Amino acid sequence: MKKKKTIVAFQGERGAFSELAAVQLLGEKIQLLPCERFEQMFRALQDGAADAAVVPIENTLHGSVHENYDHLLNFNLKIVAETSVRIVHNLIVPPGTRFAGVKHVYSHPVALNQCLKFFAAHPRLEKKTFYDTAGSVKMIMAELPAGAAAIASSLAAANYGGQILKASIEDDRKNFTRFFLLRRPDFPLAKSKAPSKVSLVFTTKNSPGSLFRALAALALRDISLVKIESRPMRGRPWEYLFYLDFLGHVDDPHVQHALAHLDEVSDLLRVLGCYPAAEPES
Amino acid sequence: MKKKKTIVAFQGERGAFSELAAVQLLGEKIQLLPCERFEQMFRALQDGAADAAVVPIENTLHGSVHENYDHLLNFNLKIVAETSVRIVHNLIVPPGTRFAGVKHVYSHPVALNQCLKFFAAHPRLEKKTFYDTAGSVKMIMAELPAGAAAIASSLAAANYGGQILKASIEDDRKNFTRFFLLRRPDFPLAKSKAPSKVSLVFTTKNSPGSLFRALAALALRDISLVKIESRPMRGRPWEYLFYLDFLGHVDDPHVQHALAHLDEVSDLLRVLGCYPAAEPES
Repeated sequence: MKKKKTIVAFQGERGAFSELAAVQLLGEKIQLLPCERFEQMFRALQDGAADAAVVPIENTLHGSVHENYDHLLNFNLKIVAETSVRIVHNLIVPPGTRFAGVKHVYSHPVALNQCLKFFAAHPRLEKKTFYDTAGSVKMIMAELPAGAAAIASSLAAANYGGQILKASIEDDRKNFTRFFLLRRPDFPLAKSKAPSKVSLVFTTKNSPGSLFRALAALALRDISLVKIESRPMRGRPWEYLFYLDFLGHVDDPHVQHALAHLDEVSDLLRVLGCYPAAEPES
Repeated sequence: MKKKKTIVAFQGERGAFSELAAVQLLGEKIQLLPCERFEQMFRALQDGAADAAVVPIENTLHGSVHENYDHLLNFNLKIVAETSVRIVHNLIVPPGTRFAGVKHVYSHPVALNQCLKFFAAHPRLEKKTFYDTAGSVKMIMAELPAGAAAIASSLAAANYGGQILKASIEDDRKNFTRFFLLRRPDFPLAKSKAPSKVSLVFTTKNSPGSLFRALAALALRDISLVKIESRPMRGRPWEYLFYLDFLGHVDDPHVQHALAHLDEVSDLLRVLGCYPAAEPES
């Protein structure tokens, strides 16, 4: 019997950087479920329409994708893997178009702003904002507007039959996006021999030194904090939730002690997942 | 001789919530300098085109305005005051328009999304995204498109001669935006008897427990941390800058000891300002 392909929800059009992340995480034998908005992708996984979701969580130039931190709290899903994708932008045209004929360049505003040196070197090109990077390739290939190009991933070019005229036109090569792979809560825990990470969210009691005491739960056990992110608590102005990533595995006794200690000094504590740490790229 | 009015740069059109913040901070006898983008407002103050700038820094529903944290680091300016403004959205029309005649509602997408209950109760109304809340009032008053209304502050209605048809249509009343008042670095320090806050930015040495040791500089002196925000460091993927607000005055000896201690365990430390703490609203 043929094995059913894993259905992977992601935000954006086919060829989005999230699709690259999905392939890095799960290989090419997957069935993709493009979603218009981030929330739809969480809902598709929760409701069973998808088996997994690929969620951008932070970018090395722009910082965290805060909306997705909020969804991690509001949906009961589980982080089972992470990966990072280098963001490479390419100038893509319908095959046969010469560079001299390009007048308008369509892409998501963030992508356009990451190629400012390219636009400075070619002042005749007019930036045109579009809702999505891969979607801009889809549009120019479908509608063939005169003098139009798009900025997107090489995967988007391949998906829609576009041709890369200029590769890697981004200003900053240290541009990576980190993605989480989410599954439903009953998905088994990875027993990895590689270094693992734990992600969690907690709130402190509202008293002086409370964040310090919470971090002590890790620091006193030499557990390495990799990231901390604060988000506002809805309905409680000027109070915050904290999201932490640290190195360790939830099966390690010292991690279990740290979690018990953190629970003792927190109002709310939820482990969002334990997963193999991706090699940091830089 | 008539005293020259303080020129205050802010982002948005006249009637923006930032203008309300400017009036709360400096009174009505000010000259306003509207700027299209946040960076222009920092530059106007740095270059002397403005005497002050009013900067939104966090919202209780959406979190921090991360771009402005980055500008605080990149420009050498000084936080001299803070305030918070309750975000009240109103349905505004050209005078004489009846509610039954309203078909399209223009505003910034964030404002439209903060009035979803109102739209659910009136499904005939079509949401139309616009670049700015106050700008949407300016537009409907100038162009008078048939059946158009805008969502914005009461100040925007007053500025452009619009009429408030429905007041306070926002979903969540616990919606506040906190603003900083910035001046150039030679502006004198406030000698306030009220409780003060200090804002600073630092980076830790990249070793386990480094954030914990940095927070110890405050916690060991019973200094109350009010907020912590992390931002990515450009050019150093997966490393972070931390922005802290704590209660205290830079003239207090224990704050001076804490800052010396923090400097000892940081790679970079810069005090962004010391200013009277606004009453927290909630």
